[in-house]
Amino acid sequence: MTTYDQFLSRAAEQMKESAIRKMGTVLASARDVISLAPGYPAPDMFPWAAFRDIATELLTGADGNVLQYGPTRGYRPLLDAIAGIQQKRGIESTMEQLLVTTGSQQGLDLVARVLLDPGDVILVELPTYTGAITAFRNVQAEMVGVVQEQDGIDLAALDATLQRLRAAGRRVKLLYVVPNFQNPTGLLIGLDKRARLLEWAYRRDVLIIEDDPYRELFFEDSASEHEVRPIKADDDRGRVIYLSSFSKTLAPGYRVAWIAAPPPLASKFEMAKQAEDLLTGSLDQRIVFEACRRGLLDRQLPILRRHYQHKRDVMEDALRRELKDLVSWPAPKGGFFLWLTLPPEVDADAMVPRAVEHGVIYVAGEAFFVDAGSPTAPGPRANTMRLSFSAPTPERIDEGVARLAATMRAEIAAATSKSAPASPATR
Amino acid sequence: MTTYDQFLSRAAEQMKESAIRKMGTVLASARDVISLAPGYPAPDMFPWAAFRDIATELLTGADGNVLQYGPTRGYRPLLDAIAGIQQKRGIESTMEQLLVTTGSQQGLDLVARVLLDPGDVILVELPTYTGAITAFRNVQAEMVGVVQEQDGIDLAALDATLQRLRAAGRRVKLLYVVPNFQNPTGLLIGLDKRARLLEWAYRRDVLIIEDDPYRELFFEDSASEHEVRPIKADDDRGRVIYLSSFSKTLAPGYRVAWIAAPPPLASKFEMAKQAEDLLTGSLDQRIVFEACRRGLLDRQLPILRRHYQHKRDVMEDALRRELKDLVSWPAPKGGFFLWLTLPPEVDADAMVPRAVEHGVIYVAGEAFFVDAGSPTAPGPRANTMRLSFSAPTPERIDEGVARLAATMRAEIAAATSKSAPASPATR
Repeated sequence: MTTYDQFLSRAAEQMKESAIRKMGTVLASARDVISLAPGYPAPDMFPWAAFRDIATELLTGADGNVLQYGPTRGYRPLLDAIAGIQQKRGIESTMEQLLVTTGSQQGLDLVARVLLDPGDVILVELPTYTGAITAFRNVQAEMVGVVQEQDGIDLAALDATLQRLRAAGRRVKLLYVVPNFQNPTGLLIGLDKRARLLEWAYRRDVLIIEDDPYRELFFEDSASEHEVRPIKADDDRGRVIYLSSFSKTLAPGYRVAWIAAPPPLASKFEMAKQAEDLLTGSLDQRIVFEACRRGLLDRQLPILRRHYQHKRDVMEDALRRELKDLVSWPAPKGGFFLWLTLPPEVDADAMVPRAVEHGVIYVAGEAFFVDAGSPTAPGPRANTMRLSFSAPTPERIDEGVARLAATMRAEIAAATSKSAPASPATR
Repeated sequence: MTTYDQFLSRAAEQMKESAIRKMGTVLASARDVISLAPGYPAPDMFPWAAFRDIATELLTGADGNVLQYGPTRGYRPLLDAIAGIQQKRGIESTMEQLLVTTGSQQGLDLVARVLLDPGDVILVELPTYTGAITAFRNVQAEMVGVVQEQDGIDLAALDATLQRLRAAGRRVKLLYVVPNFQNPTGLLIGLDKRARLLEWAYRRDVLIIEDDPYRELFFEDSASEHEVRPIKADDDRGRVIYLSSFSKTLAPGYRVAWIAAPPPLASKFEMAKQAEDLLTGSLDQRIVFEACRRGLLDRQLPILRRHYQHKRDVMEDALRRELKDLVSWPAPKGGFFLWLTLPPEVDADAMVPRAVEHGVIYVAGEAFFVDAGSPTAPGPRANTMRLSFSAPTPERIDEGVARLAATMRAEIAAATSKSAPASPATR
């Protein structure tokens, strides 16, 4: 019997299974469980008929390159279309700055590999996106979290953390933020704070990694296009690396996303991508390009905004009805997620098996916390969870929240009876 | 103006652009250049009509998962189909051993990240596949090359190299081989040598990375299915990590390949893949699965064997006609490539610009050599090149070889006139 521990790299020793991905496995093995866990877009909103037409037209064989190897940077007409999308968001980009990635997850991984050495520090929001945590951990970087306010990351805490780490001799080069409808909190960084963040990055010689998958999904009752302007749009010194994706606006199964970065870094990302997968799927890139060229993407966006806004409403209504006395959350103005704070005696991670018994699943908040790294910052909070309203139908959201409420009330009752005296005789 | 060198990781400092990918850029900017450079499959052989039917049926919207996120391990029915393919090749595999990868390039990258630390040594064939070189270099591993004989890697040199490196305190854990129709030499490792390689790996506590993309493309006039039996098929101690792909048998644009590894390593590869791209394209996996299920793949294989065998014949005939006095090559019994040794005075890399002027392009052999790392092993050889006969039509192969011959004869004439005395008067 061969053992393998002695063959593993130091990076591999630290690799862990993603909590969200693990949840997918739990889900696959359970019956009639309503999933409020993964941030999946609603598959009934994918423009199936248009995709079918596009695929049928592409697969005639008239252009052999549709299924051939292609450039690592990406399919050139798609890169042009991406430059157009960026322009609408206020970002001017040349071809030397753009790279198609296999999902934004690959973009995060390329950032990690090209910019982080083992032991380097990357500053992140507290809590932050698990996929980013995985990518940064896999290169043995250390993540240090900075608390968020209602309008996003706390700038005073951010600067204090940076100063403290640098004074201790640590190399701190990067800040990772999800400014629009953050995963997992749903928070939006305020416009004024965006400007101050950029100025801070200039002053402190830090690069900002701006991860922006939810930008198009602002809810028109509470947010405007003006408020989701990328930090990158005002970056005239090449300090921001911008990531975005078609996964939430067209479909994630295509794995088509992009990264915009200063040319010397884009060139390194390209070299790293050559080793990772040579190129993003050719047919996938063509389909996404056609969806842009034919106006399909532009037609989808207002439809999706209304769709997810409605589901957000359904979830908030259900939570007010079922759990108003027990939980609180920042109102999501866009995106897929709602971040719940539970009564302090409820441990969301420990509660998962009971939730599955009740037929509902969520992601326990712990997965989104990195070590706070500061005596003043709070550590992982057990009484938090992320709910996603994007994929389930309104009826399933209603029923899912009802099941969650039943689970939580049983949990609190059990905790109370345990902490209460066993019998009057012992008093 | 921001400079970025101080932000780069040590890995990024060492990253280089792949010579073959760079060739693609040259090609894209040149007109009427016959490319004998990249190992592209023939796009006119892709089963377009069947792919179109499959895509049309998949994109009805009846199954939302066709375009949704899915498990990192891969689409379960595809994994089952892969287990069936492996069984036909003599390899029994459980689900715990298999992982779908985004091309075999991702498989190589996962191997590199999970099994190699900076400074670790990986033994490779001399010459070896550039994509593997890129993946191993990007984790700062050191590659040490071992010469090949007519029946593949030289076992005596292999063991001597290992012993020498270990005696010098180096950590040597892996051997990377392409046993079937190696890229770039087209060589086949003999069956007896495969058995001895495996026994050597057991004895020396080494893992074999067996990269097998060309296995199905054996040419029936000179090789049999018996001769391409994977090393992995006889590995009863979990010493071989096996990689294969649908890129050469269906189409590379789908980016669907797989890894088979002992479960503890497969599990680490899965965690590394979670950070790299979450999952391989969902639609791509479905299309490939349907191509397996409907028998399309099985029907393609004999057609492809005949097709590429014919093109191999065309290229060998053209070389005999045009260049017999100047070049030599091992006869390819399968695969896509032919490895030319040129007269010693010809530098294939230096000749590239003249070849482009003549309207032909190839990959100079240097790109496939790693530092030999041994006083007895030869270093990069300038007078070698890889020709690919897979993508161009027979007419283009003929014309391409004629252009190559014209280039080479002009090169030799120029070299001769330079080294000859300038005028009789100086004698």
